[in-house]
Amino acid sequence: MTTSTEQPATSISNRRRGDVSYWSKTLIPTTRDAPSDAEMPSHILLTRAGFIRRVGAGIYDYLPLGYRSIQKIEAIVREEMNAAGASELLLPALAPIELLKKSNRDEAYGDQLFRLTDRHGRVAALGPTHEEVITELAKAGITSYKQMPVTLYQIQTKFRDEFRPRSALLRGREFIMKDAYSFALTVEGDGGLNEQYDAMYQAYVNIFTRLGLDFSVVEAEAGPIGGSASHEFMVNCDSGEDTILKCDASGYAANVEKCEIGERAHDLSGAPTGELERVHTPKMPGIDLVADHLGVDASQMLKTIVMAPAEPGDDKPDYVLAVVRGDHEVNEGKVRDAVGFGVELADEKAAKAAGFKIGYVSPKAAGLCKAVLIVDPDAAQGGTAWATGADEYDHHVKHFNWSRDMADHLAKSKIADIRNAMAGDPSPRDPNSTLRAQRGIEVGHIFKLGTKYAECFDFVVLDENQKKQTVIMGCYGIGVSRTLASCVEMSHDDNGIVFPPAIAPYHVEIVLMDIKKDDHRALADKLAQELADAGADVLIDDRKERPGVKFKDADLIGVPVRITIGDKALAERSVEFKRRGDEGKGEWTPIDNAVTACLDALA
Amino acid sequence: MTTSTEQPATSISNRRRGDVSYWSKTLIPTTRDAPSDAEMPSHILLTRAGFIRRVGAGIYDYLPLGYRSIQKIEAIVREEMNAAGASELLLPALAPIELLKKSNRDEAYGDQLFRLTDRHGRVAALGPTHEEVITELAKAGITSYKQMPVTLYQIQTKFRDEFRPRSALLRGREFIMKDAYSFALTVEGDGGLNEQYDAMYQAYVNIFTRLGLDFSVVEAEAGPIGGSASHEFMVNCDSGEDTILKCDASGYAANVEKCEIGERAHDLSGAPTGELERVHTPKMPGIDLVADHLGVDASQMLKTIVMAPAEPGDDKPDYVLAVVRGDHEVNEGKVRDAVGFGVELADEKAAKAAGFKIGYVSPKAAGLCKAVLIVDPDAAQGGTAWATGADEYDHHVKHFNWSRDMADHLAKSKIADIRNAMAGDPSPRDPNSTLRAQRGIEVGHIFKLGTKYAECFDFVVLDENQKKQTVIMGCYGIGVSRTLASCVEMSHDDNGIVFPPAIAPYHVEIVLMDIKKDDHRALADKLAQELADAGADVLIDDRKERPGVKFKDADLIGVPVRITIGDKALAERSVEFKRRGDEGKGEWTPIDNAVTACLDALA
Repeated sequence: MTTSTEQPATSISNRRRGDVSYWSKTLIPTTRDAPSDAEMPSHILLTRAGFIRRVGAGIYDYLPLGYRSIQKIEAIVREEMNAAGASELLLPALAPIELLKKSNRDEAYGDQLFRLTDRHGRVAALGPTHEEVITELAKAGITSYKQMPVTLYQIQTKFRDEFRPRSALLRGREFIMKDAYSFALTVEGDGGLNEQYDAMYQAYVNIFTRLGLDFSVVEAEAGPIGGSASHEFMVNCDSGEDTILKCDASGYAANVEKCEIGERAHDLSGAPTGELERVHTPKMPGIDLVADHLGVDASQMLKTIVMAPAEPGDDKPDYVLAVVRGDHEVNEGKVRDAVGFGVELADEKAAKAAGFKIGYVSPKAAGLCKAVLIVDPDAAQGGTAWATGADEYDHHVKHFNWSRDMADHLAKSKIADIRNAMAGDPSPRDPNSTLRAQRGIEVGHIFKLGTKYAECFDFVVLDENQKKQTVIMGCYGIGVSRTLASCVEMSHDDNGIVFPPAIAPYHVEIVLMDIKKDDHRALADKLAQELADAGADVLIDDRKERPGVKFKDADLIGVPVRITIGDKALAERSVEFKRRGDEGKGEWTPIDNAVTACLDALA
Repeated sequence: MTTSTEQPATSISNRRRGDVSYWSKTLIPTTRDAPSDAEMPSHILLTRAGFIRRVGAGIYDYLPLGYRSIQKIEAIVREEMNAAGASELLLPALAPIELLKKSNRDEAYGDQLFRLTDRHGRVAALGPTHEEVITELAKAGITSYKQMPVTLYQIQTKFRDEFRPRSALLRGREFIMKDAYSFALTVEGDGGLNEQYDAMYQAYVNIFTRLGLDFSVVEAEAGPIGGSASHEFMVNCDSGEDTILKCDASGYAANVEKCEIGERAHDLSGAPTGELERVHTPKMPGIDLVADHLGVDASQMLKTIVMAPAEPGDDKPDYVLAVVRGDHEVNEGKVRDAVGFGVELADEKAAKAAGFKIGYVSPKAAGLCKAVLIVDPDAAQGGTAWATGADEYDHHVKHFNWSRDMADHLAKSKIADIRNAMAGDPSPRDPNSTLRAQRGIEVGHIFKLGTKYAECFDFVVLDENQKKQTVIMGCYGIGVSRTLASCVEMSHDDNGIVFPPAIAPYHVEIVLMDIKKDDHRALADKLAQELADAGADVLIDDRKERPGVKFKDADLIGVPVRITIGDKALAERSVEFKRRGDEGKGEWTPIDNAVTACLDALA
C-alpha cells in the first residue's frame, strides 16, 4: 500500500506558483436568479456563482471558476493515483458496440447507453465506463506475468443517457470521472488484487481527506458491474440521496444494502396469544392497509417473500421463503449468504402454480413443496400475536404462533439476518452500540472485479511456471464533477458556497473598493504576487461595481479568504481580512501581515 | 500582445519536480510490428513505441507514454494561453442539434457531424468545434461592454466523422484540440479583435517554439468557418499533406489557396501565330488528353472557367469567365477579390442554356451574354500560339490570338492574379525572389470570425454610449493530438522517434544492464531523484530483459538522453551517457557528472 504522507492536507502547494487573475478579464457571470428547475443547493449555487451553465438536459458548461475547481480536484486525484503507482492514460469516448457486446453490457446498460451510427453504418457507444476498452487494450499489451501487477487510470468525460438527469452535476448525462483498472495474476500475496485494492483504498482516503471533505467509507454490495467486494466513499451531507448506517463506537459503516445487523435475541417457543382468526382482507394493496384493517401495527405482522434459486440445481430447494417483520425489508444479498446460493424473487406465475397464494402467503406455505424457510431474528419471536397471510386469497389470519402453527416445518427453517438494516438496529461490531443513519452522496467506489471481464475477452497470460492464468481485475471510480457538487452540498450557507481551500477556485480574493486609485491597484498586485509566490491562487475583483456587489459575489463564489483594500484601512496601513463564513465585516490587519494572515488561514 | 519571455525554450521546468517511473510498473507495449494499415512514420512509430493503440477507425487509445506527451503539449498550450490573458473553461461534447442549426453548421458539416438520438428522441451532435456553444454561453454571461475584451479557451476531445480517417492521430475521428474564442466590441484599438488576434498569434509562436517544432506561419484563406483573415501554423516536414509556398528573402509564407504571386509581365497585343484551326476533339476528358491530341503542351492552352456571382444582383454581371493557362488552377478567392464580389462555379445546366459549350468554352464566349472576363497574367500573352475551346461541342481551336479573335471583348476584360501559386512563381514581396514549395502539417489555425456567429445568436451588447453593438469574435485552434504526430513526422530516424525534450514523455531514460544488482538499482534511483529535483522526468528501464532489447526500445520511444548503468563503466565510477540520435555507443561520464551532463543536453 502506498501512502502520501508528504502531501499537506491543504491545497497550498509549495511545488507550484499560484495564479493571479482579474475578475474583469475573465468570465464569472454571477446572478441572483436560481435556475427554475433547481432544487439542490449545489445546482442553485454553482449556477448562481457562475461555475456552470446548462446547455441541455444533464449537460453543462464548466465556466472558468467551475473548471478551476474541477482541475484542482483532478490534480489531487492524479497526484495520489501516481503516488499509489498507477499510470495515467486516456481511452476514447467512442467505442465500437462490438466491444460492449462481448460483456453483454450493451444490454445491461440498456437505454442508459448513448449509441450512434456513423456515416458507414457502424454503431458506436459513448463510454459510460471503460472495462471493455481497457481489457482489450491490456490483453494486447500484457503478454507476460512480468508485466503485472499494473494499475491504469484515466480522468475522462463519460456519457450516460439518464432517464431523468437532475441536480446538475449530481446526476448528469455527460460528466467527468476518474476510472482506474488493476490487473494482477493472483488475489492474495505480493502484487495481487488485494494489495492493489488496498492501495486504491488508501489513495481514496488520501484524496478525499486532502480535498477537505467530510466523508465516510462504507462497505457496499457490488452492483451490476459484478465482483465480490467493494467500498463506497460517501460525502456526508443531509441532502444526499443515499443512506449510510454507521456504528460510531466501532467505526463500522455500510450502505443499506450491505449493512450487517448485530445479534438479536430470538425464540420461537412462546405460547399462542389466541385462536387463529381468519379475516377477510380483499383489495388491500400494501401491508399498511392490511395492518390497519386488522387493527395491528405493521411490526406485528409477518411478511413472507417467495424466492427461488437464481440458478436451479438438484442440490437446491425449489423455493426459499424469507420471513421478516411487516415493517422490515428483505435483503436479497443476505438471503443469498444465508442459504449459500444466489436467489431472486420467484416468478409469480410459477409460484402460483406451485400453490403459493402470492400476496397472502404465510410461513406455513413452506410445507407446500421443496422449500427452505429463512426467518429474520426479529420475526422469530414465539410470544408475539403475529398477523400474517392465510394462504388463501383475500384472507389473513391473526394470532399466528410459530410453535403451534409451524410445528411440522420448523425443522426446515433457519434463523438468520436477512433484512435491510435500519437506524437503531444493534451494531454488528459493538454489542453496546446501535446503528445511526446518515445521508450521503457517493463520490467514489472501488470494486474487486475478479475475472469477469478477463473471461469475456479471454485475457489469459502465462505465469512463471508457463501455466495459463486468467487475469484478475479491480476497478476504481471517482466522480470528479460529482465531487465538486457534493462539496457544495456539504458546505454552504445562506450567502453562497463555503469552499475548503483545496477545492476553491481561488484561495484568496482581493476586493478593490475603488479601482480608480492606482496605489490601491498596485498594493493588490503586490499582495497577489507575494501570495502567488507562496503557492496561493488569487482573484482580484477589479470590476467597475459597487463594493456591496463585490462583497456579495465574494461570499457567493466561496473563496476562503477575502482581503479588502480601501481608503479607511489604508490610512492605518492596514487592509481588511475576512475568512469566508466568519460573521460580520472582518478585521483590519497591517499590510505587512496580510500575506501571513492569509496563509495561516489556509493552512 | 502578451509574450512569455520568462518561459525557457526547454521543457525542463524549475517550477515543478520531475516524475520518476519504472518501466516494469507501467504499460509500454513496444512491438516490432507496424500496423498493417500504417503508411505514415508517426502512425507506425507511435504504435510500435507503445504510445497509441487503435480501437476503431480513427479512434485511438493514448497509452501512458502517449498521454504523457499529450499532457506536456497541453501544459505548454495552457501556460501560453493563460499568459496571453485567456481563461480556461470546458464545454460539453454533446450539443443539442438546435444550437448548430442556428448557424447552419449542421448542414455545413454534413456527414462529418456525429449525431445521436437520445432515449427521449432528442438529437444531439458531438462537437466538432464549439462556436455555437460558446456564443450562446457568452451571450448569456456577457451583458455589458465592461465584460469585454475576453478570450476563453478549452482543451477538449473533439469528434468528426471523417469519411476516410487515416494516419492515426493525423486525421482521426476523435481527437484532442485546444479551441479558443475571443469576444470584443471593436476590430481596431485597445481591446479590439485585432489586439486579441495578435496576442493569440504571438502565443502560438511561443507555443510551437517552446515545443521545439520546426514550423511556418502562413497566411491562409478563411475556410467554411467564415471570416476575413487567418493564419495557419504548419509543422515543416516532407510527409505533410499540405503545400506551403515561401519566399525566403522576405519571410512571406502562405498556403496554396491564399498565396499571392508577384508581378508578371503581360501583353495582349502580339500578332497571330497562324490561322484559327478547328480540330475535332471528342471524348477527351481532361486538358492533358486534349493537349496531347492537339500536339501542344498544356501550358500552351487557355482554360476558361465559367463562374457566376454567389449572390446575383443588378449591379453584377450574369457570368464571370476566368481564363488561366492550361497547366494552372483558378483560385476562387482571387477571382472574388478581382471582381469585387463572391463567385462560384456556374450551374452547368443554366450555363449551357445561356449558350456556353461547357468543356469547350473559349474566352470569346464572354460575348454571349452579360459577362465579365478576367485573365490571369500568364494567360494574357499576345504572341503565343494558344489552343483553346472552339465554343462548339467536341471541338477546340489552335492559334487563338487575343487581339485578332477577341477585339470586341477585350474592353470587358481585366488582367489579374487569379490562379493558385506554384513553386517558382515570383515572390509577391521581393521582386528578385521566387516562391519555394514546402510540405507541412497544419497544427494551428487562427481566424478573425467577425460577427458571423454573434449575428446567428443575436449576441448584442450596449456600448459605453448605450448603443447596441454586435459582438466581434475570433477563433483559434490547435490540434493537440495532431501536434504529437506532426512532431514524430518531423523528427525520427530508422531506429524510432527522436523527441525534442519538450514533447518527450520522459527527458532521461536510465537503463539497468543488470536488474539483480542492488547497487545498480540504488544508483539509478539516486540519479533519478537528483534529475527529478532539477525538473527532469525520468524513466528507469528495470525490466527483466536483455540490454539489447532495452537499447532498441530506448531508441524507439525517443527519450532525448539515455544513461546506462553497467559493471564496466561502474568499475571506473562512470555511467554511459548517450543523446538520442548520437551515433555509436555513447560515452562514459563520471557518476558525479551524470546529472549535469543530462541537464546540459536538455538545455
